[in-house]
Amino acid sequence: MKIFPAEMHYLIDKMTGLAGEAFGVIKPKDTSELVEALKYAKEHQLNIIVVGANTGLSGGTLPRKRDLIIDLSGWKTILDFDEATRTLSVEAGVTLNQIYDFVEQKGYFYPPDPGAKDATIGGNIATNAGGMRAVKYGVTRDYVKALEVVLIDGTIVTLGSLNQKDSSNYDLKDLLIGSEGTLGIITKAWLKVVEKPAESSSLIASFSEITTAINSVSRILNAGVLPASIEFFENNGLKFAEEYNQRTLSIPDDAAYLLLTLDGDKEDILQAAGAVEEVLSNATSLSRLSSAEATAAWRLRDDIAAAVQAKTIAEPVDIVVPISQISQTLAFLKQKASELKLEIVTFGHAGDGNIHALILRGALSDVHWEQLIVQYLDEMYQFINQIGGLASAEHGIGLMKRPYYLKYLDDNLHQLYQRIKVAFDPEGRLNPGKKI
Amino acid sequence: MKIFPAEMHYLIDKMTGLAGEAFGVIKPKDTSELVEALKYAKEHQLNIIVVGANTGLSGGTLPRKRDLIIDLSGWKTILDFDEATRTLSVEAGVTLNQIYDFVEQKGYFYPPDPGAKDATIGGNIATNAGGMRAVKYGVTRDYVKALEVVLIDGTIVTLGSLNQKDSSNYDLKDLLIGSEGTLGIITKAWLKVVEKPAESSSLIASFSEITTAINSVSRILNAGVLPASIEFFENNGLKFAEEYNQRTLSIPDDAAYLLLTLDGDKEDILQAAGAVEEVLSNATSLSRLSSAEATAAWRLRDDIAAAVQAKTIAEPVDIVVPISQISQTLAFLKQKASELKLEIVTFGHAGDGNIHALILRGALSDVHWEQLIVQYLDEMYQFINQIGGLASAEHGIGLMKRPYYLKYLDDNLHQLYQRIKVAFDPEGRLNPGKKI
Repeated sequence: MKIFPAEMHYLIDKMTGLAGEAFGVIKPKDTSELVEALKYAKEHQLNIIVVGANTGLSGGTLPRKRDLIIDLSGWKTILDFDEATRTLSVEAGVTLNQIYDFVEQKGYFYPPDPGAKDATIGGNIATNAGGMRAVKYGVTRDYVKALEVVLIDGTIVTLGSLNQKDSSNYDLKDLLIGSEGTLGIITKAWLKVVEKPAESSSLIASFSEITTAINSVSRILNAGVLPASIEFFENNGLKFAEEYNQRTLSIPDDAAYLLLTLDGDKEDILQAAGAVEEVLSNATSLSRLSSAEATAAWRLRDDIAAAVQAKTIAEPVDIVVPISQISQTLAFLKQKASELKLEIVTFGHAGDGNIHALILRGALSDVHWEQLIVQYLDEMYQFINQIGGLASAEHGIGLMKRPYYLKYLDDNLHQLYQRIKVAFDPEGRLNPGKKI
Repeated sequence: MKIFPAEMHYLIDKMTGLAGEAFGVIKPKDTSELVEALKYAKEHQLNIIVVGANTGLSGGTLPRKRDLIIDLSGWKTILDFDEATRTLSVEAGVTLNQIYDFVEQKGYFYPPDPGAKDATIGGNIATNAGGMRAVKYGVTRDYVKALEVVLIDGTIVTLGSLNQKDSSNYDLKDLLIGSEGTLGIITKAWLKVVEKPAESSSLIASFSEITTAINSVSRILNAGVLPASIEFFENNGLKFAEEYNQRTLSIPDDAAYLLLTLDGDKEDILQAAGAVEEVLSNATSLSRLSSAEATAAWRLRDDIAAAVQAKTIAEPVDIVVPISQISQTLAFLKQKASELKLEIVTFGHAGDGNIHALILRGALSDVHWEQLIVQYLDEMYQFINQIGGLASAEHGIGLMKRPYYLKYLDDNLHQLYQRIKVAFDPEGRLNPGKKI
């Protein structure tokens, strides 16, 4: 077992630019080396941070001085595909791209699609990653049948099973999903794959008011149509992405947009597209996109965050609210930005209530920016809490959202969380200072 | 707060005939009385058993002398229906029948359909109840958005939320689901309801071999058809139900049957029925059922267990195996029964791997029956464990399956479960002697 000095990419959080320190890095070659590393960490009273592809967006793996980093990004083996139960078993370091390619070849489909396709499945599970297709297909949690988890004391447990019903076990599999490395080390996952939809087709609609766009979303869902994705963005986000991509979409210049994908067989799609067009008769424009246009439109949607961040430092928001509250939440976000004279770009997953926003620093001085953004986030998370929303929909709490998350976490629940934490990690050495 | 003496129905387990004792019964009128009862129980070092409609099938609420029974069957208020998020909030004592009626009127659908429609939602959640429609719609877990839970120390927590994504909280909601009253007291639930399918249609097929019937199931699923239900039963089960119901189905006398329901819009059903007929060309007979015939056929399927139990004492089995293992599991169950000269009736949910069986006592003496059934169950649970199955799919472990469940529970996992139990219930006073 060799301990490497931590290179820069382990120590610098890409999102925040925050710099950490670390005791060192271990790249275990198998589970027994991982257990050995845990033993070493125990003897030297080191904490444990597990890292994968380093694509996190909330500082969830930023180390501190007494942290031993366990890098599982080398665990890239797809172990098995059992067609009879449609189960793919993979090591924790397997990337989404590997999974997509593998199941595509087999004629199946793994729906979760968070932004970073080079992220590892271990990281996806640790944060319960979401993505564009959650409205129809759900999130990572919905595709994890079982996990192999190494506990801090070196014991290895399998949580969940390949059975479709379970009234036997305590459901700890779901507790590990989204626990951000604070309860155990996910080393292996058994994933559910599904039938690949025969076809898919995208539509884009433009609106003179963001509220009209958002309010159309529940009307689409209530018309019995379940698109794979329903994304919204506003004019300024589109402009950022168009400039970044050096290409424009041939749609009217308008206040807000809905970009939808329908999937299924040809007939279902035609029927759904007809229903969507009927509901969206209030749009300024509406077009069914050709395959090439759809690729271009989704590329622009995907690139909004990168496009903004290429221009300026920006604070990323990953809130989620009940879908009935999206409109008023957007109104609040924009109103508050306007009051503080901050530029904001909003976009996100209109079908599931997950609103992303970037608050742009622009030319503000360090001091001014720090003061404004703290005030903005304080008021935003207070508002989100009041309407029953959550600080993180799909990125995780990590380091960055922790103060806000803890501020609004119910005291009784927090105490219960702490007892749960102790049940898994009595000395508090798993990813300390993150999440709870 | 009044403590009643426990009437007989609290003390006798209907399934086993086992008799318990109890300290008394409390029927709290609200949460504050419930908390008061917990305080009283703490002061008198009493255990707590929560009961609902008393429809459990695994002795999960059978009390012992120092157990204070908290009866929540009077908590029958449907609290709210939020159409925008399709969320129904109910008190724990609301029955499935109440839920079905309520959502039906609103034009929605609550899919979980375990046998006992007079069961309370609290009990359904505590056992993660399943039912016939799990193959397409999943189980109770899939329809619980949030829970209000009273902990043993009297604190009240809300687990889960109305948000569609969550990368913020530890998922304790899913841990409570299926925990059989050992971790906390479920007092309120927020349930997800879905679009009501426009139509449904049933088919029945008969086969000269059970293996042919079972092997057809994966071929149906692989043909891209997802029936709401795919049930199997054998000739002897049908005969019991026909006699019990005093009516016969007009289908050929054959070894085994598959009964399927397809739902969706008319066109989808027609298409799916065509695909099913193609796959089932190996059946002896296949008929699409009229609405009246479907009602009769499902009635008979529903009544198999009751019909057998009306004739003889019978040991109920609720195992689940990965769907690729159903055939060999059935072969094992029947072979073992034949070796021990026990009569067995098998039936169940062929689409999700949940096999029910009844082992019939018939005219066996107490001693002989006890000896044979213990041997049968020992060998059966050992086999189930070897192939990755579980002791309970949808009824819960309760008292009856506990020895078998614990025998095959991994030691490391068992220790983790015990630490989790302590985190919720440090003195071990919640439903002691059940599940773990």
